[in-house]
Amino acid sequence: ALIAILPGDGIGPEVTREARRVLEQVGDFDFEEASVGGAAYRETGHPLPDATLALAKRSDAVLFGAIGDPEFESLERSLRPEAALLGIRKELGLFANLRPAKLFAGLEEASSLRPEIARSIDVMIVRELTGDVYFGEKGQGTTDAGLREGHDLMRYDEAEVARIARVGFETAKRRKGLLCSVDKANVLETSQLWRDVVIEISAEYPDVSLSHMYVDNAAMQLVRDPGQFDVIVTGNLFGDILSDQASMCAGSIGMLPSASLAGEGGLGMYEPIHGSAPDIAGQGKANPCAAILSAAMLLRYSLGMTDAADRIEAAVAKAIADGARTADLGGTLSTGAMADAVLGALA
Amino acid sequence: ALIAILPGDGIGPEVTREARRVLEQVGDFDFEEASVGGAAYRETGHPLPDATLALAKRSDAVLFGAIGDPEFESLERSLRPEAALLGIRKELGLFANLRPAKLFAGLEEASSLRPEIARSIDVMIVRELTGDVYFGEKGQGTTDAGLREGHDLMRYDEAEVARIARVGFETAKRRKGLLCSVDKANVLETSQLWRDVVIEISAEYPDVSLSHMYVDNAAMQLVRDPGQFDVIVTGNLFGDILSDQASMCAGSIGMLPSASLAGEGGLGMYEPIHGSAPDIAGQGKANPCAAILSAAMLLRYSLGMTDAADRIEAAVAKAIADGARTADLGGTLSTGAMADAVLGALA
Ligand SMILES: CC(C)[C@H](C(=O)O)[C@@H](O)C(=O)O
Ligand SMILES: CC(C)[C@H](C(=O)O)[C@@H](O)C(=O)O
Repeated sequence: ALIAILPGDGIGPEVTREARRVLEQVGDFDFEEASVGGAAYRETGHPLPDATLALAKRSDAVLFGAIGDPEFESLERSLRPEAALLGIRKELGLFANLRPAKLFAGLEEASSLRPEIARSIDVMIVRELTGDVYFGEKGQGTTDAGLREGHDLMRYDEAEVARIARVGFETAKRRKGLLCSVDKANVLETSQLWRDVVIEISAEYPDVSLSHMYVDNAAMQLVRDPGQFDVIVTGNLFGDILSDQASMCAGSIGMLPSASLAGEGGLGMYEPIHGSAPDIAGQGKANPCAAILSAAMLLRYSLGMTDAADRIEAAVAKAIADGARTADLGGTLSTGAMADAVLGALA
Repeated sequence: ALIAILPGDGIGPEVTREARRVLEQVGDFDFEEASVGGAAYRETGHPLPDATLALAKRSDAVLFGAIGDPEFESLERSLRPEAALLGIRKELGLFANLRPAKLFAGLEEASSLRPEIARSIDVMIVRELTGDVYFGEKGQGTTDAGLREGHDLMRYDEAEVARIARVGFETAKRRKGLLCSVDKANVLETSQLWRDVVIEISAEYPDVSLSHMYVDNAAMQLVRDPGQFDVIVTGNLFGDILSDQASMCAGSIGMLPSASLAGEGGLGMYEPIHGSAPDIAGQGKANPCAAILSAAMLLRYSLGMTDAADRIEAAVAKAIADGARTADLGGTLSTGAMADAVLGALA
């Protein structure tokens, strides 16, 4: 199988390097690397060069590092690092973003939540990834009164909602059977359509218990009692906010992976939840676990290698339980040494 | 001064009744009550009757309870309880929503956060309240392919951003001098305009230190290290989410008030952050403190009665410190008994 590695900016190259070492230990893969984000802009003048997109498309799975660099924040939007990420998601049709949030045993201290509450978190956030206000018509203009204005259209159609709802129900079916759909139907028509369609699809899943929650309440409940959630399905914008919040409730953002899928099986993109962290880039301080766990998701969802995925996840858990800690977890291990600990546990 | 009381639905009547008792103890006011929300719909067929809106407009300040009732969720949008709240905000031009989040000493146990982190919270969220995707063109329709779709336009113009930014800077000036503007400028044009205008206005406030944060990161930071924030200024939708999250970090949603203002001084509307809580309505279990503290904000912002406001806030703090607790705080006091405790501390 061909795995495309897009290291990107900041700590992206450091963490994907370690994830690759772990992949090499569990299987025989072809790897090809290509640049993306600010790094690609520096080399080619574009954050998502054609060659990078072509590589992603012909690969069996993409391992993505991170993008973003304050240096490029004032470029026009289409040339910023973020445009590469949004572009790949859209071009590859990766409409389903799976973001698990779970506390690793031994990391109770890393969460701001009381240990007993932090330990109760085990939620999978299913975020729609190619629609919503992210991809609606957007721009800046002038009002009749001559004022500058900015606008972005929030929008979903029923087919977009139905397919992500099915991913939510399927995910819940394989877990505890509880699906919570998050929207703002008391204010937004987009959300009203969302809620109506989710209810329609629920008829196909009599064994999953469906509930609905407004997004403001969900943000509250994720702090108050995160253990109540099994699977959350929500739109692109609300999913962006809630998944970051949930991952922080679960302790370190340095521990959590994500998968972006075009449906069941097949090509997917896998990346840590954390960003490019320019402040610590190149210093060997980054925690490679999120990237390593992203590689495990890659094996599970795109390559069907469930056993290898299980083994990697167990190895990360063991390394943590044995006390391996990077700086974000209050320890002193370097990026490479942390990966060594995982590789050791894997052996 | 004329204070309009709009009790609304669920626990709204119970908590505003107690807030009125507290107001009566500190001054000589005229009170007029009118129905709003589901209660008004039941009586008149409309959630915001003309007489209610007229009363609000001719009053010096409005004390609002809560609205919302699952019974009315399937009505057309303009007849739902929420329409009343959005309607008053818009009709009265209440563009600035101030939501303080702070832990009351003695309530450490009520927060899901570790006590030392919960204790560090002291943030004022300044939320824009009459624009954004809440009030943009919205509707449902059919796509070219014949699919149902729903849409809502997110939008701000520079005047809307400038005036709420000024409220943010003024608020920060009176506090620790730190303003964090929250947006999603890496994806949204509305946010890009927001950020540009906030930066322009910052020139008027050289003594306030301005920072910017993406909303997903802000949701994370409010869990990780909420003590870093002094004042947050943000749009209507992000403010809705973050203020509920922040209030839960600070312990009980039953303790936190809000003010909705049309500018500095003058007519404003004051309401608890909590909702109508239909599950406990009419049982005398609701915590009246959020409504009582909303009355204190009313005295402070609309009537210029700073001393009386200070005294009420101190009385609530004292009642809590002395151990008064409603059910949401793990105690057994009824709504009325909790208010008695505050009145006792005030005397
Ligand atoms: C970098 C940004 C465009 C992106 C998003 O908002 O989707 C990021 O926050 C994420 O969640 O992957
Ligand atoms: C009830 C709802 C329309 C309202 C809002 O979203 O503004 C509420 O959540 C609030 O924050 O006051």
